[in-house]
Amino acid sequence: MIQVTLKGDVVKEFESGISVAEIAKSIGMGLYKAACVAKINGEICDLRTPVMEDAKVEILTFEDEEGKKAFWHTASHILAQAVKHLYPQAKLAIGPAVDNGFYYDIDCTPAITLDDLAKLEAEMKKIVKSGLELECFTLSPEEAIKLMEEKQEPYKVELIQEHAGKGEPISFYRQGDFVDLCAGPHLMSVSPVKAFKLTSATGAYWRGDANNTQLVRIYGTAFPKASELEAHLAAVEEAKKRDHNKLGRELGFFTTSDLIGQGLPILLPKGARVIQLLQRFVEDEEQKRGWLLTKTPFMAKSDLYKVSGHWDHYQDGMFVLGDPEKDDEVFALRPMTCPFQYQAYLSKKRSYRELPLRYNETSTLFRNEASGEMHGLIRVRQFTISEGHLMCRPDQLEDEFKSCLELVIFMLKTLGLYEDVSYRFSKWDPEDREKYIGTPEQWDEAQGKMENILNHLQIPYKIGIGEAAFYGPKLDIQIKNVHGKEDTLITIQIDQMLAEKFGMEYVDADGQTKNPYIIHRTSIGCYERTLALLIEKYAGAFPLWLAPTQIKLLPIADRHLDAVYEIQKKLQAAGIQRVEIDDRSEKIGYKIREAQLEKVPYMLLVGDKDIENNVVSVRSRKDGDIGAMSLEEFIEKANEEIRTKAIQ
Amino acid sequence: MIQVTLKGDVVKEFESGISVAEIAKSIGMGLYKAACVAKINGEICDLRTPVMEDAKVEILTFEDEEGKKAFWHTASHILAQAVKHLYPQAKLAIGPAVDNGFYYDIDCTPAITLDDLAKLEAEMKKIVKSGLELECFTLSPEEAIKLMEEKQEPYKVELIQEHAGKGEPISFYRQGDFVDLCAGPHLMSVSPVKAFKLTSATGAYWRGDANNTQLVRIYGTAFPKASELEAHLAAVEEAKKRDHNKLGRELGFFTTSDLIGQGLPILLPKGARVIQLLQRFVEDEEQKRGWLLTKTPFMAKSDLYKVSGHWDHYQDGMFVLGDPEKDDEVFALRPMTCPFQYQAYLSKKRSYRELPLRYNETSTLFRNEASGEMHGLIRVRQFTISEGHLMCRPDQLEDEFKSCLELVIFMLKTLGLYEDVSYRFSKWDPEDREKYIGTPEQWDEAQGKMENILNHLQIPYKIGIGEAAFYGPKLDIQIKNVHGKEDTLITIQIDQMLAEKFGMEYVDADGQTKNPYIIHRTSIGCYERTLALLIEKYAGAFPLWLAPTQIKLLPIADRHLDAVYEIQKKLQAAGIQRVEIDDRSEKIGYKIREAQLEKVPYMLLVGDKDIENNVVSVRSRKDGDIGAMSLEEFIEKANEEIRTKAIQ
Repeated sequence: MIQVTLKGDVVKEFESGISVAEIAKSIGMGLYKAACVAKINGEICDLRTPVMEDAKVEILTFEDEEGKKAFWHTASHILAQAVKHLYPQAKLAIGPAVDNGFYYDIDCTPAITLDDLAKLEAEMKKIVKSGLELECFTLSPEEAIKLMEEKQEPYKVELIQEHAGKGEPISFYRQGDFVDLCAGPHLMSVSPVKAFKLTSATGAYWRGDANNTQLVRIYGTAFPKASELEAHLAAVEEAKKRDHNKLGRELGFFTTSDLIGQGLPILLPKGARVIQLLQRFVEDEEQKRGWLLTKTPFMAKSDLYKVSGHWDHYQDGMFVLGDPEKDDEVFALRPMTCPFQYQAYLSKKRSYRELPLRYNETSTLFRNEASGEMHGLIRVRQFTISEGHLMCRPDQLEDEFKSCLELVIFMLKTLGLYEDVSYRFSKWDPEDREKYIGTPEQWDEAQGKMENILNHLQIPYKIGIGEAAFYGPKLDIQIKNVHGKEDTLITIQIDQMLAEKFGMEYVDADGQTKNPYIIHRTSIGCYERTLALLIEKYAGAFPLWLAPTQIKLLPIADRHLDAVYEIQKKLQAAGIQRVEIDDRSEKIGYKIREAQLEKVPYMLLVGDKDIENNVVSVRSRKDGDIGAMSLEEFIEKANEEIRTKAIQ
Repeated sequence: MIQVTLKGDVVKEFESGISVAEIAKSIGMGLYKAACVAKINGEICDLRTPVMEDAKVEILTFEDEEGKKAFWHTASHILAQAVKHLYPQAKLAIGPAVDNGFYYDIDCTPAITLDDLAKLEAEMKKIVKSGLELECFTLSPEEAIKLMEEKQEPYKVELIQEHAGKGEPISFYRQGDFVDLCAGPHLMSVSPVKAFKLTSATGAYWRGDANNTQLVRIYGTAFPKASELEAHLAAVEEAKKRDHNKLGRELGFFTTSDLIGQGLPILLPKGARVIQLLQRFVEDEEQKRGWLLTKTPFMAKSDLYKVSGHWDHYQDGMFVLGDPEKDDEVFALRPMTCPFQYQAYLSKKRSYRELPLRYNETSTLFRNEASGEMHGLIRVRQFTISEGHLMCRPDQLEDEFKSCLELVIFMLKTLGLYEDVSYRFSKWDPEDREKYIGTPEQWDEAQGKMENILNHLQIPYKIGIGEAAFYGPKLDIQIKNVHGKEDTLITIQIDQMLAEKFGMEYVDADGQTKNPYIIHRTSIGCYERTLALLIEKYAGAFPLWLAPTQIKLLPIADRHLDAVYEIQKKLQAAGIQRVEIDDRSEKIGYKIREAQLEKVPYMLLVGDKDIENNVVSVRSRKDGDIGAMSLEEFIEKANEEIRTKAIQ
């Protein structure tokens, strides 16, 4: 008999050799049916796995990340089996689970297209109905290669050959007439994959290399229940509509140009206006909190980056001007602001009394991203960030870190993004030392300091190994975009190395010369990325204080135009600048529809009656007609909404 | 007898062959004594020149530009003569008149240094006293070379050899024992050069080429009267103090860094704040006047510049990223914003109803200036400009040009710079056609249109041939810096060529597709340059609305600190953000002196009595102590000064 520790530290006794599936059944049929895979002592494994001795066992369902992955992975095998049924000549490449589903890369002549997906789905349905069980087996590398050669699967042979050197057995999964090279884990059978959908068929190169054969990548997703699949597909449709790269273009926030190039978006008046407003909001708030604005150059000689370490640790990401082999003087566009703001610190001798010294900057940065990796306003070659570096004494470090974080939280709350973020404590990877400057002792010290602060502030973080900057650990504030993809929005970093490299010093109260600590931070991140997130968050319907057009004035007929111009003047005199007039001779219903499509927060309709009664008829984007009121009353209401930065 | 037309179209009769000097004498001894050179029928010449037939004669004095030049040129010969008296071994290079004086380049061993200038001045004084007359004579090239070889002047020989090919006679000027190769014109004698000063001795290469011999360049200036010289030297001293490259650094507006490189200034918090305030002022004013903000990328593929013509006509001035010979994709940093804003125009189909379409942008540009040509905030490799492009129909061109100019004048008046500017109508140079795109007909048309508009608007302009942009004529608004050096601050350009190149179109009322006119313009020019001009204009004492620190609070003793913090809060709540507290335990007199040196507009002193009487004691930078008043009264006064952007 063995002791098995289950969820909630419940310990149960079983016979040695019992499978995880049977353990699940002993807990309840509901769990047994929902179970996808399990963890034995933290190691992920199949439900078939026997438990031989005392262990901690966790049963994972589709609700768990690993459960989902196994579910989708099994779905990808069902897809591959269906492909082989319909196209026996097809050669299989790889078929993993990914975010939100799975794909399989297939080499098939004639190529499988979108039109074929319905047929494939029908075949998959048959396979799922058949209830085939999945079975795992292993072969020696030689046997494995022989099997795959027999099945005429050259891509699989190539993959096995790469692993063959290690001499370890190669694992396969079989379901009925289908066998696939696979490390698992998988569901017990194909039956649970009840609700699935093949969503696209696109081109992809074998191993992502454009010199190799082009394959067809079939994407799909799957769920235990049809209702879940439907909800997911509806969410995907909604996400597509909100995708800033679509909606942002449709609403005229930005565009791109083939002549200018990839990753260099052009902010049109609406997008530029929102960024201007955000920038002023950030700079004003930072000024109130004691930050001093700088404006430093966007390029420097290589000399600067050699001191900072960017030349050795970041050169691939930089745009270099000139040829380091040939030219006396080589410049590079800056990928970060740090060494530039340090020159401001270095412009005079500093005393402990001047610290903390907080420099902020609306800073444009450049990253030499590869063509093809660009996306809308998110992956770009040039972006502008609310940057800042804070020099302080050791005794000030925690308070200053806290005040940086408070500013970030204030910004995120104001923009309505705070509920969507999570924290990551990004550490260095001691296994990959050439990525970093500094000694293990320095890293231990900086990470220890940061850990203490985070624990003091009770920040709930996950840990990211190898995600640190090359000069120090980071607190990353992560956010998911509308498609569920996670990205870093904001970072706050502690750096005890660069001050020494740059000779940044202060004379302390004891007369000694010391290096300050540096906090690298942003308060709202990159403006382009923030704009993209806001477009997606609000589906283009910006709060009044940020809306590129705040109010649209709609005269009912041409004879009301004079009154409308007067109203525009009064609104602007009251500080509401972004007021447009739709002076076209169109029907009022048409004008309202267009303003609604443009997501303008308020429309003021002006006709004979309104002029007679000295009122405006107000329509809100959100609530439709909200009745007639005096212009003064509307101005007061609108200005209050602007002042409080209300999110509708 | 001949008819000579004098100033004010007065005609006098003289005998043929009379010298200009005698004509001057016949008008009056005052003019005779003041005369430097003359123009006969518009051609500059010596006063010795005989007038042979009917002519228009203009007598020029030191008050005229050409008179000054001749005066200083004669002074440079006096300097050279003195050099040869004291250092017979010295070899003379060239010695022209320049802005504000003259110089002479000399090859002498041992080298002449600053310490030798007093001796040289004394020798020059003797020469002036001797009253030597200057005499002009010409030689054939062969004779000229022989003369200079005899006098052991190798640089002069080299210069003559270059001209010898033309076979024209070579002119010399002689004064006593001194002869110099010279085209003239000169004064009649050395006597008028009464008041002079040698101001510096610096290194200079023969022909400006660092591979040649290094010479000593002795600078000097000269005036008819000692009082004029004194006034000039005092003004030079004052200009040096105000020079933004000195004062701007001293006051902490900017700094530079060897690690970053030349022409890439770092704006410290004070400078960055002034630019932020200027930028907001400009963007807000432009918004009010119907301009739509864009934010376009700072780089593009070479493809864009090939269409615009920059690749062929401006490549030397651009920073190129990548090697056009090797790389598939070559980028360049932008030297101008035009083609980028055009992509915004091109983002949708345009109708005549949308025109004029006015795009503004706070735009950063890059120019690949040669090392060594950099100067402070004026000649730089990266700068930010209040840029704009306006697309309009032909019938809108004049009104829109006028409104661009009105905006510029409004800006310049607000900043107090308007009285210092002059206008230049910059045309193409038909002799240098490869510098430009377009046909002579197109240039005639565009320049004709611009001339009409300028004349309509009664703009008093001078003409600058060869100063046009490569795509069209410009109205340049010129300003002199504190040293008297003229530079272009602002330009407004008319362009009828680039819209066609970029395929920018609109559908006109008649259904036809047409190219718009484009006005390129700036409203306040480059922010860095404007900041430099303002530092010099105000000697660092910025008006209250622009001052980086507006108010300094000076507690008399430490026990007044709490009251002072309260006052700071109240000021900031009233919208006066830039308030600093001098909380050091220093004497109040010391604190006042320091605030005065920092050029802070107002100091508020707070002591026991002030707190008792609920007042603040106000000191203004300009008027010193202006008495005690309630904080409310001071806030009202200060806010009025800010609102009106008053210049003290």
